[in-house]
Amino acid sequence: MTDYTSMANGGLPRISPYQAGKPIEEVQRELGLSEVIKLASNENPFGMSKKAVAKCAEALNSSHIYPDSNGYYLKQKLFEKFGYDPKTITLGDGSNELINLIFQTFINNKVNVVIPAYSFVVYPMEATVADAQVKTIPLKDWVIDLDAVYDAIDSNTRMVVLANPANPTGTAVNINKLKEFVKKVPHETLVVIDEAYNEYQKEEDFDDTAKWIAECPNLIVSRTFSKAYGLAGLRIGYMVSNEEIASLVNRLRAPFNVNAIALTAAIEALDDTDHLKMVVAENAKERDRYVKYCEDHNLYMIPSQANFVSIDFKRDAFPIYDALLHRGVIVRPLKGYKLDTILRISIGTHVENTKLFKALDEILKSLK
Amino acid sequence: MTDYTSMANGGLPRISPYQAGKPIEEVQRELGLSEVIKLASNENPFGMSKKAVAKCAEALNSSHIYPDSNGYYLKQKLFEKFGYDPKTITLGDGSNELINLIFQTFINNKVNVVIPAYSFVVYPMEATVADAQVKTIPLKDWVIDLDAVYDAIDSNTRMVVLANPANPTGTAVNINKLKEFVKKVPHETLVVIDEAYNEYQKEEDFDDTAKWIAECPNLIVSRTFSKAYGLAGLRIGYMVSNEEIASLVNRLRAPFNVNAIALTAAIEALDDTDHLKMVVAENAKERDRYVKYCEDHNLYMIPSQANFVSIDFKRDAFPIYDALLHRGVIVRPLKGYKLDTILRISIGTHVENTKLFKALDEILKSLK
Repeated sequence: MTDYTSMANGGLPRISPYQAGKPIEEVQRELGLSEVIKLASNENPFGMSKKAVAKCAEALNSSHIYPDSNGYYLKQKLFEKFGYDPKTITLGDGSNELINLIFQTFINNKVNVVIPAYSFVVYPMEATVADAQVKTIPLKDWVIDLDAVYDAIDSNTRMVVLANPANPTGTAVNINKLKEFVKKVPHETLVVIDEAYNEYQKEEDFDDTAKWIAECPNLIVSRTFSKAYGLAGLRIGYMVSNEEIASLVNRLRAPFNVNAIALTAAIEALDDTDHLKMVVAENAKERDRYVKYCEDHNLYMIPSQANFVSIDFKRDAFPIYDALLHRGVIVRPLKGYKLDTILRISIGTHVENTKLFKALDEILKSLK
Repeated sequence: MTDYTSMANGGLPRISPYQAGKPIEEVQRELGLSEVIKLASNENPFGMSKKAVAKCAEALNSSHIYPDSNGYYLKQKLFEKFGYDPKTITLGDGSNELINLIFQTFINNKVNVVIPAYSFVVYPMEATVADAQVKTIPLKDWVIDLDAVYDAIDSNTRMVVLANPANPTGTAVNINKLKEFVKKVPHETLVVIDEAYNEYQKEEDFDDTAKWIAECPNLIVSRTFSKAYGLAGLRIGYMVSNEEIASLVNRLRAPFNVNAIALTAAIEALDDTDHLKMVVAENAKERDRYVKYCEDHNLYMIPSQANFVSIDFKRDAFPIYDALLHRGVIVRPLKGYKLDTILRISIGTHVENTKLFKALDEILKSLK
């Protein structure tokens, strides 16, 4: 029997499949529950802009036509909104695909990649696929330690990947320190900032980092429409970089990697600023309820600037995860990160969070 | 200034961006035309199933939720319809992504890939990205020469890629010869059959090749919903292979590579067999009109078993392409394949084809 696994490139045989949050239907099927809420995948509980839904419904009637391979209108809209030159933009099937493409373009078994601990699991996975060395940098009070990251860069470091705010911690770095850091990294080392959650950031910690590219040609900023814009199901993200890097990644991506419905939705979503403001404001308000809940129940919550919170139960959190599941609330255990005492909970609507608090109350009581 | 191009992996810097067929809006914008039809990208002019459109419109309301990463219900539907074990199925963001993933999994600079001449441009492009040697095998009367392909396989041949029916020729191989071929290829050499157009094939040349995998573990069959099912804008395809290969490619793909609308549409499209039958029957009828047109006008049409025809004008075809464009009909020049005298025309609706014939009549007359 031929061993196809041994024929696979790089470190691919060594990675395990990504564990997605359980879909609602799966939990309903497996546990025979009718009412299930999912606070596991950092989705936007307020949905996407109603205006975007309406435009997408129209667009369905021309779904037999290939999408515009160059995303002309979306790139124009991003230029109009944020001033990014279309030639510096690459569109992706979610920002996850963009991350993969960057690794595929630049990473190989001769270089190393510097990644802070407890980063999005996809980064080290892609580094392993590329057979590159990974340098994991411990956090400082759950926040990326930029000094330590800088110190880890050597002449073989092809790339640094920073999520800001990070997942699964939810923490963000000080924006001035970040700018200093990016400016001093040698241009031969790429700096990827994954800003999947940046719309949720506190104003004082926010800056349009994609504007820094003018000074820092090694900087790549990736963004997504999956979170604050609520398009997770449609799959679309974008990346801003210098033109040369954009040209390389654009050549590597499949010509029709982004579907037509996602392109339509993203354009409308960018225009519906009222919806975005509402989403961000509601999230901040509900996040404060989590802060209070944790204070009241003597639980440690990692300070979050995202649309999720990670709570340390200071005991094996799996039974709590499981008990929530049986009460129809799906949250995310962080076993994969070896954070066995922590659960990551996506911030839902007011009603959903209330349901979570109630369930958690019962479970915590029963555990005493 | 840092040279990022020289830092890119493999042969990526050597490939040119894929040239997509011009989008209708682009032609309208550039030429100031209001009525433009596109017969350039082998799209399905009858659109997708109306039942699928309706289901997708509902699904839009939960677009803020990530798609099911494992495509459970679509895999179940494929099992129900065709008997494929879900463990042998990999879903892709169009079959183009699946082709890319297969190359990324198995192809590198130590192996060669055997590809018939005038194949889908993406195959040699991906081989170049992987820095692999490409062995190009001439066609015989525009059809893949399976004997020559077999003879080209050596101990270093990691993969053979066959499109059946092929693009841009539209020809299909004899199914019995194909089965013989697949059976005798050594198991260390993968055989990929890209069946993007297989629903349009003549019955006598059709077989469910994915069923051959039981005997041929090195066979990989890729299919798409972009053509006969009319979902090109949504991006979804699937691949059937042995379980070990499926497991590898499934680990490499991004966890949410297929969007939720495409998953919904594909399930409904598979169920709407009436729509599929209509599409295939109309296409066959209209294809016969192209056969007759070419006979009447003394033009050579490559015998097509797909939803497009390639016509040899026996002179530089670019002026004809350009004249059609100015009359609001987008077709596809094959300059990229060095087939300068040939235009590839997607088979449209009866009305669209009539418009093409009329425009072509005028142009051919003016050229005499």
